[in-house]
Amino acid sequence: MALLVHLPGLDASPWVEGFRRALDGYPVYGDDDIVPRSEVRYLFAWKPAPDAFEGLDNLKAIFSLGAGVDALLRHPNLPDVPIVRFVDADMTQSMSDYVIAQVTMHHRLISRYQAHQRAKVWTQLYPPPATDIAVGIMGLGVLGEDAARKIKMLGFTVNGWSRTPKSIGGVVSFAGAESVPDFLAATDILVNLLPLTEETRGILNTKTFKGLRRGKLPGGPVVVNAARGGHQVEADIVAALEDGTLGAASLDVFEIEPLPKTSPLWTLPNCYITPHIAAVSNEANGVRYFSEMLTAHERGEPLANLVDRGRGY
Amino acid sequence: MALLVHLPGLDASPWVEGFRRALDGYPVYGDDDIVPRSEVRYLFAWKPAPDAFEGLDNLKAIFSLGAGVDALLRHPNLPDVPIVRFVDADMTQSMSDYVIAQVTMHHRLISRYQAHQRAKVWTQLYPPPATDIAVGIMGLGVLGEDAARKIKMLGFTVNGWSRTPKSIGGVVSFAGAESVPDFLAATDILVNLLPLTEETRGILNTKTFKGLRRGKLPGGPVVVNAARGGHQVEADIVAALEDGTLGAASLDVFEIEPLPKTSPLWTLPNCYITPHIAAVSNEANGVRYFSEMLTAHERGEPLANLVDRGRGY
Repeated sequence: MALLVHLPGLDASPWVEGFRRALDGYPVYGDDDIVPRSEVRYLFAWKPAPDAFEGLDNLKAIFSLGAGVDALLRHPNLPDVPIVRFVDADMTQSMSDYVIAQVTMHHRLISRYQAHQRAKVWTQLYPPPATDIAVGIMGLGVLGEDAARKIKMLGFTVNGWSRTPKSIGGVVSFAGAESVPDFLAATDILVNLLPLTEETRGILNTKTFKGLRRGKLPGGPVVVNAARGGHQVEADIVAALEDGTLGAASLDVFEIEPLPKTSPLWTLPNCYITPHIAAVSNEANGVRYFSEMLTAHERGEPLANLVDRGRGY
Repeated sequence: MALLVHLPGLDASPWVEGFRRALDGYPVYGDDDIVPRSEVRYLFAWKPAPDAFEGLDNLKAIFSLGAGVDALLRHPNLPDVPIVRFVDADMTQSMSDYVIAQVTMHHRLISRYQAHQRAKVWTQLYPPPATDIAVGIMGLGVLGEDAARKIKMLGFTVNGWSRTPKSIGGVVSFAGAESVPDFLAATDILVNLLPLTEETRGILNTKTFKGLRRGKLPGGPVVVNAARGGHQVEADIVAALEDGTLGAASLDVFEIEPLPKTSPLWTLPNCYITPHIAAVSNEANGVRYFSEMLTAHERGEPLANLVDRGRGY
């Protein structure tokens, strides 16, 4: 029996040491160790290497470091074992922190007022109260629901779009592909928190942007993407920000990360870029969460927060 | 009997017309009319002229357009009649909208990430979750209380400072001058919503900034002023933003408005300027509010939301 920590491209040592302390005698290996691969029962992984699963003949479960499991599910040799998603209050808090900061600063016309400040112009335009503005959240998982509840409480109208209908207090539910036009037409600020699947890839495109409501938010509708770069067509975002289809955008994720220096997104004055820092999987919380799950599973208890491979998340 | 609308420097005509429609036959005058001054029972005012009160021998009450009455109370010839403050749900909503946008964007290190974007730098620093950060609100009137409740709900610790202790769910109450050092030492982001009085004038100064907590919010503590320019010592803000005593500031009000083009505040990269648009007295709401109060008072009912001249607000 053993846990293997497999985090190519990241410094895995704090995780290995954390799991060793928490699991108290249970064997824990990192990729740099000589790993008795047939003994590995649990794999803690993030963006697995091509040979990640070789020789793991007794694997019982995969623990995913991130909330998004798209990189894992794309792996051609993914074994048929349960995948456990990381659900963490701190990660949820941080994601809502990011989303609310972006939504509220755009509602308050930051792009306009920063342009005026650069020109030393004093021209009063009162932003409408939040009660006049609708925020549309695509994706109502744990992260989307928390953000939706908080944004609602601030006074905004909140529309939620998801694969299946959801009942969240005060949030208008739109479900399924056929409801997308109505959802967009009722939305001034669009927030993407979807999982990345074949259905959602490239969903932030010109057609989507043109479907958003115009006339409520001075300057035009806004897009916030805190999910995956694969959701966005960056050429469409650049065009929309330049021709006024979008008033502004906040992007935390990109088609290629780090964002190449040649990307025109860097210099668009109404594009607010952050380097994939909306939310992070907290190490201490992750060690505790997966250690408890491993220990319970070894006692015979079922795993929780499992990924549905059919849905893709 | 008559209502006089006195708004020097503003376009009073929509207010005059609004009151005429709402009061249906009750005489309403603007400054451009020939005003039978001894007939004026109510004065609707904002920043009154030196001769504003001359000949108003039968004045029953003054209605203040703004939530802040400091300009009114400084008038040397202010008659001894009740002053009614404007209390408006839309104004409260807009003020909280502004405060939350500024607090959350600074919590998410906007100044750092905008500097990185200008330099096309991709360097990940995860902002701490809101649960690690404390927002201190000076002034817990209607506006301060609404902002405090909403900020608390987002997960922040909220400290409130006021003249007398206040009990607001989950908000740590600090009261009186002697509690200021403790209040500041527990605060990462300081929000000013105080009334402007002789006690609060210039309260946003170097000593206050140096008293704020350091080490929790990357980049240093932040100040947000949405109350009055008279609260802030702008030379101290410039120095604090330049030497790192403050990490950033959001200012909606200024010692002189419009902010002179010569002010160094315009070009400081960590200073976020808006042209006194945090909250506005909504015309339709104001006409309805004061018309109803005037009509009720003429029926013999008492006035509400009166200013306490002893306190200065």
